[in-house]
Amino acid sequence: MKNTVVSIIMGSDSDLPIMQEAAQILEDLGVAYECSIVSAHRTPDRMYEFAKTAEKRGIQVIIAGAGGAAHLPGMVASLTNLPVIGVPVQSKTLNGVDSLYSIVQMPPGIPVATVAINGAKNAGILAAQVIALQDQKVKANLVKYKEGLREMVEEKAAKLEAVGYESYLSK
Amino acid sequence: MKNTVVSIIMGSDSDLPIMQEAAQILEDLGVAYECSIVSAHRTPDRMYEFAKTAEKRGIQVIIAGAGGAAHLPGMVASLTNLPVIGVPVQSKTLNGVDSLYSIVQMPPGIPVATVAINGAKNAGILAAQVIALQDQKVKANLVKYKEGLREMVEEKAAKLEAVGYESYLSK
Amino acid sequence: MKNTVVSIIMGSDSDLPIMQEAAQILEDLGVAYECSIVSAHRTPDRMYEFAKTAEKRGIQVIIAGAGGAAHLPGMVASLTNLPVIGVPVQSKTLNGVDSLYSIVQMPPGIPVATVAINGAKNAGILAAQVIALQDQKVKANLVKYKEGLREMVEEKAAKLEAVGYESYLSK
Amino acid sequence: MKNTVVSIIMGSDSDLPIMQEAAQILEDLGVAYECSIVSAHRTPDRMYEFAKTAEKRGIQVIIAGAGGAAHLPGMVASLTNLPVIGVPVQSKTLNGVDSLYSIVQMPPGIPVATVAINGAKNAGILAAQVIALQDQKVKANLVKYKEGLREMVEEKAAKLEAVGYESYLSK
Amino acid sequence: MKNTVVSIIMGSDSDLPIMQEAAQILEDLGVAYECSIVSAHRTPDRMYEFAKTAEKRGIQVIIAGAGGAAHLPGMVASLTNLPVIGVPVQSKTLNGVDSLYSIVQMPPGIPVATVAINGAKNAGILAAQVIALQDQKVKANLVKYKEGLREMVEEKAAKLEAVGYESYLSK
Amino acid sequence: MKNTVVSIIMGSDSDLPIMQEAAQILEDLGVAYECSIVSAHRTPDRMYEFAKTAEKRGIQVIIAGAGGAAHLPGMVASLTNLPVIGVPVQSKTLNGVDSLYSIVQMPPGIPVATVAINGAKNAGILAAQVIALQDQKVKANLVKYKEGLREMVEEKAAKLEAVGYESYLSK
Amino acid sequence: MKNTVVSIIMGSDSDLPIMQEAAQILEDLGVAYECSIVSAHRTPDRMYEFAKTAEKRGIQVIIAGAGGAAHLPGMVASLTNLPVIGVPVQSKTLNGVDSLYSIVQMPPGIPVATVAINGAKNAGILAAQVIALQDQKVKANLVKYKEGLREMVEEKAAKLEAVGYESYLSK
Amino acid sequence: MKNTVVSIIMGSDSDLPIMQEAAQILEDLGVAYECSIVSAHRTPDRMYEFAKTAEKRGIQVIIAGAGGAAHLPGMVASLTNLPVIGVPVQSKTLNGVDSLYSIVQMPPGIPVATVAINGAKNAGILAAQVIALQDQKVKANLVKYKEGLREMVEEKAAKLEAVGYESYLSK
Repeated sequence: MKNTVVSIIMGSDSDLPIMQEAAQILEDLGVAYECSIVSAHRTPDRMYEFAKTAEKRGIQVIIAGAGGAAHLPGMVASLTNLPVIGVPVQSKTLNGVDSLYSIVQMPPGIPVATVAINGAKNAGILAAQVIALQDQKVKANLVKYKEGLREMVEEKAAKLEAVGYESYLSK
Repeated sequence: MKNTVVSIIMGSDSDLPIMQEAAQILEDLGVAYECSIVSAHRTPDRMYEFAKTAEKRGIQVIIAGAGGAAHLPGMVASLTNLPVIGVPVQSKTLNGVDSLYSIVQMPPGIPVATVAINGAKNAGILAAQVIALQDQKVKANLVKYKEGLREMVEEKAAKLEAVGYESYLSK
Repeated sequence: MKNTVVSIIMGSDSDLPIMQEAAQILEDLGVAYECSIVSAHRTPDRMYEFAKTAEKRGIQVIIAGAGGAAHLPGMVASLTNLPVIGVPVQSKTLNGVDSLYSIVQMPPGIPVATVAINGAKNAGILAAQVIALQDQKVKANLVKYKEGLREMVEEKAAKLEAVGYESYLSK
Repeated sequence: MKNTVVSIIMGSDSDLPIMQEAAQILEDLGVAYECSIVSAHRTPDRMYEFAKTAEKRGIQVIIAGAGGAAHLPGMVASLTNLPVIGVPVQSKTLNGVDSLYSIVQMPPGIPVATVAINGAKNAGILAAQVIALQDQKVKANLVKYKEGLREMVEEKAAKLEAVGYESYLSK
Repeated sequence: MKNTVVSIIMGSDSDLPIMQEAAQILEDLGVAYECSIVSAHRTPDRMYEFAKTAEKRGIQVIIAGAGGAAHLPGMVASLTNLPVIGVPVQSKTLNGVDSLYSIVQMPPGIPVATVAINGAKNAGILAAQVIALQDQKVKANLVKYKEGLREMVEEKAAKLEAVGYESYLSK
Repeated sequence: MKNTVVSIIMGSDSDLPIMQEAAQILEDLGVAYECSIVSAHRTPDRMYEFAKTAEKRGIQVIIAGAGGAAHLPGMVASLTNLPVIGVPVQSKTLNGVDSLYSIVQMPPGIPVATVAINGAKNAGILAAQVIALQDQKVKANLVKYKEGLREMVEEKAAKLEAVGYESYLSK
Repeated sequence: MKNTVVSIIMGSDSDLPIMQEAAQILEDLGVAYECSIVSAHRTPDRMYEFAKTAEKRGIQVIIAGAGGAAHLPGMVASLTNLPVIGVPVQSKTLNGVDSLYSIVQMPPGIPVATVAINGAKNAGILAAQVIALQDQKVKANLVKYKEGLREMVEEKAAKLEAVGYESYLSK
Repeated sequence: MKNTVVSIIMGSDSDLPIMQEAAQILEDLGVAYECSIVSAHRTPDRMYEFAKTAEKRGIQVIIAGAGGAAHLPGMVASLTNLPVIGVPVQSKTLNGVDSLYSIVQMPPGIPVATVAINGAKNAGILAAQVIALQDQKVKANLVKYKEGLREMVEEKAAKLEAVGYESYLSK
C-alpha cells in the first residue's frame, strides 16, 4: 500500500463539495492522500499541531482550501516547510475575490501556490505534478490524463465540425 | 502609573509609519498602551504566545495592523476572547483592498473590528471608546477630543466664509 | 432583570433577516439588547434623537446595519461617544461592496468597527466581547461559545476522516 | 446684487482644491453662490442646521463634496427638499471609488445627483442648468459656454490637422 | 391640463421594468411627463432630433436610463442645455458597474446627474425637486412624500419594538 | 458557393451557447464561416496548427471565444497575421472580468479586437464589417441589418408612446 | 501617393501623447492615415458629420481613442458601417477601467473592436491587419514587423543568457 | 557542479527587475537555475520549443513571470507536465489585477501555481520547497532561511519595544 503523501484540508465542511475534486483527481492519478477539516479560526491549536507534524508524518504536499478571510493556507505555510497549495473557495458576498486575495497576496518569505477560485481539481493535479518528480507511475498517469483532455477536445471538435452548432446544441 | 490596557501590534516595521498614529492618539487620550511587532507568517509561535497571554497580562483591547494577505488580526482574534481591532495597511499593488478583504471578511464566530485602510488613528479612538466604558477620565478625554474636531472645522469654515476660496487656498 | 446594554438598529426592515443574527447571538451569550429600525435618510431626526440619548439610556455598544450608501453606522458614530459596530448589508446591485466601503472608510476622528458583509452574528459577538470586559458571566459564555465552535469542527473532522468524503457528502 | 441661490459645501478644507472648480464655473456663469465647510461626521449639528435652513435662506441647489465614507451629500439630501448635487472627491487609498459608491448608491426616496469623481466643475454647471430654468441670463451664459467648448475643440482640431501630431506635441 | 415638463427615455424596452418607476413616482408627485425609447446606438438620428428639440417642446428635465456602454444620458446631455438625469441600468455581466461608470464619469463641461444603479425612482424624485423650484404644488407633494417615508419607517419601528424580531419576521 | 472567410473557434463546447450567436449573425449577413473547438490549454498543438494555416486556407478573420484565463484569442493572434476578434465568455466566479482582462490587455505588437463579455453577436458583425470592405453584398446586408435595428426600436417607441408603460409591460 | 484609408480621432488633445502611437505604427507599416480631434460631448455635430461621411471619403477603418465616459468610439460606430477600433485612454481617477467598460460593453448590433487601455499602437496594427487583407505591401510590412519583434526578444534573451541578470540590469 | 533544476523565464526584459528576486533567492538557497526571456506573444515558437524540451533537459520546476494579458505561465503549463509557478507582474494601468486573473484563473486540467503580484521571491522559495523534497541540502537551507526571517522580526520587535516608536522611526 502506498504512503500518504498529500494532505487535503479545508476550513469548513461547507467547502467539501468543492474540495472533493482534489481528492477525486488524486485518486485518479494514483496519489495517496488524506482529507480532513482544519479551521484556522475555530481550531487554531489543531491547525498548529497539523502543520507542525505534517512533514514528519510523511506528507510532501499540503492542499488547503478556504473562503472569505481564508487564512488557512497562509497560516499552514507559515508553520511548515512543505509546499502548500491554496484553493480560494467562492464566497457568498464577494464571489471569492476576498478568498483569492487573502490566499495569493502572501508576504515575501512565505509562499502559497494559489490556483483558481474553486480550482480544487487543479490543486490536485499540481500536487501530483510535484509528487511525479519522484514517482514515475504518477508521472505516467499525468501524461495519460493530459492525453485524455486532448482527445476529449478533439472528439468534441470533430463532432461539432461534422454536425454543426445547431444539431450539437440540440442534444 | 496606569496599567497597560491596549496592545498595538503590526506584522512588520514597515507598517509602523501608519500604526504609530494609533499610539499617538492613545497617548493623547490618556490610554496606556504597548507597541510591538508580531508577524503571523514569520513568527507564528510568537503570535500564539502573544495572543494566548494578552488577557492575563491585563490587556483589554488589541489593535493589529497588517497589509496584503494580512492574517495577523484574524489569527489573533481566533486565539483570544478580547476584542481585536484590525487596521488594513495599504499594500503596494492592490492599494489595500487585499488587506481590507482579508481582515474584514472573517467567518461567523471570530469577529475583527475593522477600520479604514490606513485608519490606525481611528483604531486608537475605537480602543479608547471601549476603555472609556470603564474609565471616566478616558471618556472625558474623548468628549474633549470630539469637541476639538468640531471646533477646528468651525474655525476653518468661518475663515473660508470670511476670506473666500481664492485667498484661503493661496496661503 | 438585566439592563439593556446593546442597541441593534438597522436602516430598513428589509435588513432584519440578516440583522436578527446579531440579536440571536446576544441572547445566546446572555447580553440584554434592544432592536429597532432607524433610517439615516428617511428618519434623520429619529436618528439624531436615538444617537444623542443612547448613552444616557445605559447603552454601551451600538450595532448598526445598513446597505447601499449605508450612512447609518457612520452618522450614529458621529453623534455619540459609544463604540459603534457597523454591519454592511449585501446590496442587490453591488453585492455589498458599496455598503462595506461606505461603512469602513470613515475619516480620522470617527471610527466605525466594521464586520464582514452580512456579518451580523460577528457584530453581536464583538459587542459581547466589549461587554465581557466588565461582565464575567458574558465572558464565561464567550469562552464556552468558542469552545463549542472548536468542538463542532473537531467532530465534523473526525467524521470526515472516519467515513471519507463521498459518504460524508451523500448524507 | 443677485441673491445667493447655490450653496457649495464640503466635508473638509482638504477638498477645497477640487471644490473651488464649482465656485469658479458658477462665477463664470453668473450664478451667485456661497461656499463653506460642513462636516457630516465632525459637525453633525452644524450640518443639520445648514440643511434644514438652506431653503428658507433662498438656496435653490446644494453642491456637496466629500471623500471616503462621504456621507455629507446624502445626509444633507435627507434633511432638505432641495436638489442636492454630490461630488465624490478622490480618496487616497481607493481612488474615489468609495466616495462614488457612498454618494451615488442612495436608497429609494432620497436622491443625490452625482457627478464624476473630482467632477466639481460639472457640479457647478449642473447647478447652473437648474437655475437657468428660471433665469434667462444664466441660460444664455450656458449656451455661450457650450459654444466656447465647441470652438476650443475645433480650433485644436484645425491646428492638429494643419501641423501634424509631432509638431503639435513638440510645443 | 398640465404641460409635459419631464421626458423619460431609455435605450431599450428591456429597461422599462426599471424605468417605469420614474414614471410612477412622477405621477404620484403630480409632474406631467412623457416616456419613450431612444437608442443612442440603434437610433442615433432619433436621439439627435429628440435632444435638440426637447427644450423647445417645453421639457425642463430629461431622465435617461441605459445599461452596459450606456451612452444615451451623456450624448443627450451633449446635445441640450437642459439638466439630464442618468439612470445606470443593471447589466447582466458586470452588475451595472459598466453602466454606472459610463454615465457618471462625464468629462468637464457636460454633466449628467447620476443616480444609483437601477435608481429610476430617485431619478423621478430628483426631477420633481427641480420642477418644484417653480411649482409650489409639486413642492408640497414632495414634502408630503418625504413625510410618508418617515411615517412608514416609524410605524415599522414601533411594530418591531412591540412584537420583537421573531414575530416580525414570521409574518 | 462562397469561400469560407471567417473562422469561429472556442476553447470549450461549454462556450457554444454563447458563440453560436456569432455563427447565426454571419449566416444572416451572408458571410461563409466555419466553426470548431480549439483549446489553447488542452490542445496547444491543434491551436498552433490551426493558427499557422488559417491564412493559407483562405480565412480572413478569426473569431475566438474563451472564458477565465482565456488565452486562446491572444495566442492565436501571436501565431497569425490575420485580424483576430476575441469574445470574453462570462466565467462562473468572476463574471467574465477575468476573461475580459486576459483578452483585451494584450502587449504592444499583438492586438486582439475585443468585444463585450458574451458579445459573440457583435464579434460576428465586426467580422462582417471587415469582410464588407471587399464584398459589396455583405456591405449591403450590413446596411439593411442596421436599418432593421433602427426600425425595431422606432416601432417599440411608437408602441410605448401609444399605449403607455403599464399597458406595454402587461403584455 | 496613397489614399488615406485609416482615420485616427480622439476626444481631446490630452489623448494625443497616447494616440500618436497609432499614427507612428501606421507610418511604419506604410498605411496612409489622417489624424484629428472629434469630441462626442463637446462637438457632437462635428462627430455626426465625421462619422456619416468617413466611408464616402474612402476611409476603411476608424480608430477612436477616449477616456472616462469615453462615448466617442461607440457613437461613431453607431453612425457608420465601417469597422471602428476603440482605444480606452487611461483616466486619472479610475485608471482607465471606466474608459474600458464604456468602450467594450457595446450592446448587440453595434460592435467596437477594443484594444488594451492606452493600447494605441495595437489599434494601429489591428487597422493595418484589416487593410492588409487587400494590400499585399502592408501585409508584407506586417510580416516583417512581427519578425522584428521576434528578433528583438531573441537578441535580448541571448544577451541575458550570456551575461546574467546582474550584469544585464546594471547597464 | 549542480544540475540546473529550475528555469526562470519572463515575457519581457522589463519584467527582469522583479523576476531577478527569484534568481537571487534560489542562489541563496543553493538551487541551480537558468534565466531567460521567452515571450508567448512575440516568440511563440521559442516558447513551444522551450516548454516541450524543459523536462528532457532536467528542469524540474518552471517559474514564469508576465504582466498584462500574461499568457506565458499558462501556455507553458499546457505544453509540459512539470509544475509551473506563475508570477503576475504589476501592470501600468490595472496594477497587476489583469496579470493575476490571467495567470490564476486557469481551466480544470492545467494548473499554474500562482504567487502574489510581483511575488518573484516567493516563486523562488516555492520552487526550492519542491526541490527540497528530494534534496536535503536545499531543505536545510530553507529551514535556516525561515529561522532568519523569524530572528529578524524578533530583533526588530525587541528594538521597537526598547526604544519606542518615535525613536525607532527617527533613524
